[in-house]
Amino acid sequence: MGPRADNSFSLAELIARFGGEVLGDASVRIRQVAPLDAAGPGQLTFLANLRYERQLAVTRASALIVGPDARDASALPRIVCANPYAFYAKVSALINPRARPNAGIDSRAAVDPRATVAKSAFVGAFAIIEAGASVAEGAEIHPGCYVGRDASIGRDCILNPGVTVYHQCVIGERAVVHSGAVIGADGFGMAMEDGKWLKIPQIGRVVIGDDVEIGANTTIDRGAMGDTVIEDGVKMDNQIQVGHNCRIGAHTAIAGCVGIAGSTRVGKYCRLGGSAMIGGHLEIADNVEISGGTTVAKSILSPGTYTSVFPVSAHDEWLRNASLLRHLRDMRDRIRKLEEQLKGAQSK
Amino acid sequence: MGPRADNSFSLAELIARFGGEVLGDASVRIRQVAPLDAAGPGQLTFLANLRYERQLAVTRASALIVGPDARDASALPRIVCANPYAFYAKVSALINPRARPNAGIDSRAAVDPRATVAKSAFVGAFAIIEAGASVAEGAEIHPGCYVGRDASIGRDCILNPGVTVYHQCVIGERAVVHSGAVIGADGFGMAMEDGKWLKIPQIGRVVIGDDVEIGANTTIDRGAMGDTVIEDGVKMDNQIQVGHNCRIGAHTAIAGCVGIAGSTRVGKYCRLGGSAMIGGHLEIADNVEISGGTTVAKSILSPGTYTSVFPVSAHDEWLRNASLLRHLRDMRDRIRKLEEQLKGAQSK
Amino acid sequence: MGPRADNSFSLAELIARFGGEVLGDASVRIRQVAPLDAAGPGQLTFLANLRYERQLAVTRASALIVGPDARDASALPRIVCANPYAFYAKVSALINPRARPNAGIDSRAAVDPRATVAKSAFVGAFAIIEAGASVAEGAEIHPGCYVGRDASIGRDCILNPGVTVYHQCVIGERAVVHSGAVIGADGFGMAMEDGKWLKIPQIGRVVIGDDVEIGANTTIDRGAMGDTVIEDGVKMDNQIQVGHNCRIGAHTAIAGCVGIAGSTRVGKYCRLGGSAMIGGHLEIADNVEISGGTTVAKSILSPGTYTSVFPVSAHDEWLRNASLLRHLRDMRDRIRKLEEQLKGAQSK
Repeated sequence: MGPRADNSFSLAELIARFGGEVLGDASVRIRQVAPLDAAGPGQLTFLANLRYERQLAVTRASALIVGPDARDASALPRIVCANPYAFYAKVSALINPRARPNAGIDSRAAVDPRATVAKSAFVGAFAIIEAGASVAEGAEIHPGCYVGRDASIGRDCILNPGVTVYHQCVIGERAVVHSGAVIGADGFGMAMEDGKWLKIPQIGRVVIGDDVEIGANTTIDRGAMGDTVIEDGVKMDNQIQVGHNCRIGAHTAIAGCVGIAGSTRVGKYCRLGGSAMIGGHLEIADNVEISGGTTVAKSILSPGTYTSVFPVSAHDEWLRNASLLRHLRDMRDRIRKLEEQLKGAQSK
Repeated sequence: MGPRADNSFSLAELIARFGGEVLGDASVRIRQVAPLDAAGPGQLTFLANLRYERQLAVTRASALIVGPDARDASALPRIVCANPYAFYAKVSALINPRARPNAGIDSRAAVDPRATVAKSAFVGAFAIIEAGASVAEGAEIHPGCYVGRDASIGRDCILNPGVTVYHQCVIGERAVVHSGAVIGADGFGMAMEDGKWLKIPQIGRVVIGDDVEIGANTTIDRGAMGDTVIEDGVKMDNQIQVGHNCRIGAHTAIAGCVGIAGSTRVGKYCRLGGSAMIGGHLEIADNVEISGGTTVAKSILSPGTYTSVFPVSAHDEWLRNASLLRHLRDMRDRIRKLEEQLKGAQSK
Repeated sequence: MGPRADNSFSLAELIARFGGEVLGDASVRIRQVAPLDAAGPGQLTFLANLRYERQLAVTRASALIVGPDARDASALPRIVCANPYAFYAKVSALINPRARPNAGIDSRAAVDPRATVAKSAFVGAFAIIEAGASVAEGAEIHPGCYVGRDASIGRDCILNPGVTVYHQCVIGERAVVHSGAVIGADGFGMAMEDGKWLKIPQIGRVVIGDDVEIGANTTIDRGAMGDTVIEDGVKMDNQIQVGHNCRIGAHTAIAGCVGIAGSTRVGKYCRLGGSAMIGGHLEIADNVEISGGTTVAKSILSPGTYTSVFPVSAHDEWLRNASLLRHLRDMRDRIRKLEEQLKGAQSK
């Protein structure tokens, strides 16, 4: 997955593949992508935001990707295109192709004879595929993964080392799941009776659509009765918790450490910032952006950006402001009284 | 663990097992449980809260479980009982019995000859049981689990795939531990000396009582000197962190992503909401409920519900309110001054 | 790692090793360390803070470690030294030496012939060492760990059971990594194009210095282009998330459940409290302390302690204060108006 010195492309070749226009020398060869401030000869960088224009003057990159608004921001050879960041993603993927393991089942894997593993799939050492499970063409089940009974892993999925998929769960095509992720553990459901918690069997599944990415150590619980559903194109970072019976709308992106309690529905194309916490049984509309660190305890029915963070400050200042919070009611009452007194005084 | 079409029970059979009273046709057969809005023929649903009474009118369920207050809320065949949610839990467990693996040690497991594994226990492929460890009757150590030196796993425990239990830790009877949970890693203890951190050996254990459930990727650290203790009946969701030397009181329920710093004692029958954060060296009384997203930085000595969440709002509104927080002191001072001026004006 | 009855030291022997001075009987033998309130005969305890002086009167410990300020706080045999907590750490490590596994590769490990494992290293059952990876002298790769292609594990590192290190990542010397930690999963990078997320290849590495500790289930993502860097002596607790291209300065200590978004630089000797959340692309100066539960959404350029926590209170009180937050602007406006009116009244 690292740089390959021999894997170079000219700007002309790049626009032939991905569109756009070259300004300057189109024969410049690119061997790697790099950030604006670290790029050197043979490297291509990009300017996604005019805020960084100042760094343009000093970059040592051989060429740039810029948007139409920055067409003339540099004299370097450059590719002008509508979406420089996406263009960079494509060039990087071209130059840095993923190393694929060879197809086949490692002799040290434990594949139940009643499981189905496609010919072109890979199953690594110490991976376990239980009875009734299926692994589709091109899928990679890396070492130490666990695929439970009757679970289904779609075409070209990548389960990195140490992923756990519980029984009956379904993962669509082209998913990328990172190490330590746990799909389909029991949801957190219990009833209190006579001073003890009774476990409620979690008989639903997790059903994951196509083109989903799931980060390291993220957990998605199976449904209590119906399923927990992750729609197509959802991207989830690390250490996320999704409770039972949630539904996450297509193409929503969820940053690290977010927790979503049970039975909540998150819309499509939402963006949930890091460590946001979404309560249970809520409805979040499409195109909602939640700021990092925000706690959401009620439904959000309109698109827009929402925040609930106490502003950070030096501890002493925080102490003063935080303690005054308790006096808000008193302050309001005193204002009211002043208003009345003043009114009284003026009417005399 | 999925539905079994042949595993049906009449309402009469259900109350014979679990108590309660049938109103309407007691011979109706139930093949599965389902939520009020999704239930269909052959399915039993429940009304735990009169708020959902409107959905009763349209449910396609064959029968209901209701509390005494909703005795006459429907004409459907129904079971009246004191605790509909608990009754539903029992019916679901009856209809959806857990698939148990066969007893015995998989030939691909690594069990140290100095470990003790009971005859009726199961040890899966690639599981490791170290020297001196013991696994009691009926316990299930699923594939890829690690049970460290001298650790002890109680009767009928279920360690799902990929659970890690460090050396010397003790898990009581009937625990359910989900994948990726780590029991007994070192607590976070170190002393600063000459600009470097010195590690403090963590020589205590984790001691877990009976009937505890531990969610996926939850971590419970071993004690620095004494033990970290999880009392009987505690239920923990996913992604929880419990620091060294904490004690969690019996039957406390902890939702996902909660963090509890070291040496804190949480009482019995507490409920900690998702993503709550409890500081170290604190005391939380019995029967305390902490709202989701709340940060607790001081002890809570009385039962009740406690909260510390900045209310979520549209980002622009948040910005206004958050910035005004810094002016609280100024506002209070101006109110005081106004009061004095008004007093002065009136006394003239 | 537990107590060893035969592993005892006199106070005289302890100061010969670690410095300090003995007051009282220097021949008293110490078999274990214990907390002030739990210590008994043969045990050594310490007083790191005069706040606990009252407990001194009743401790059953055989001897104490105290600072110069508490030199005469007890009549028990005692060691006086500059840093009692650090002294205790050293005594505990002496009395409780870690059990080291024997060197060698377990026959059930999967070590690629193109990997390099030093003679004195240990590789446990079901561990995987991929092609090109290297494991240095004295390192311990416990059961079920995964060391990816071309990764490098330094001398005397300890990877506890079930640690995952992705390809090309580098871990320096003497690191301790706890179970479930994932080093080098893909960072969370993608570009939106035509309503779909395009994955940005994460071609950087994670590079970890010497003497680093990484807690259970902590995740550190590989860089998008450059590397994610953890400098020497950093100590990280459990369940932490570090985004791609972060740099964490030397000797910084990070408590459990902290999230640090991508491209943020945290200084040296910082202390990040539990569940703190640090946004992306920020700069945190050296010697900054962030309180537990704090959300940091802007850079912090000066040392000091910073906080952003809504103070916890009984739920009803919280409700009142939280709802009044929305009226801050109104309150300020009314104060202004009052001031004007009063001014007008007085000038008449």
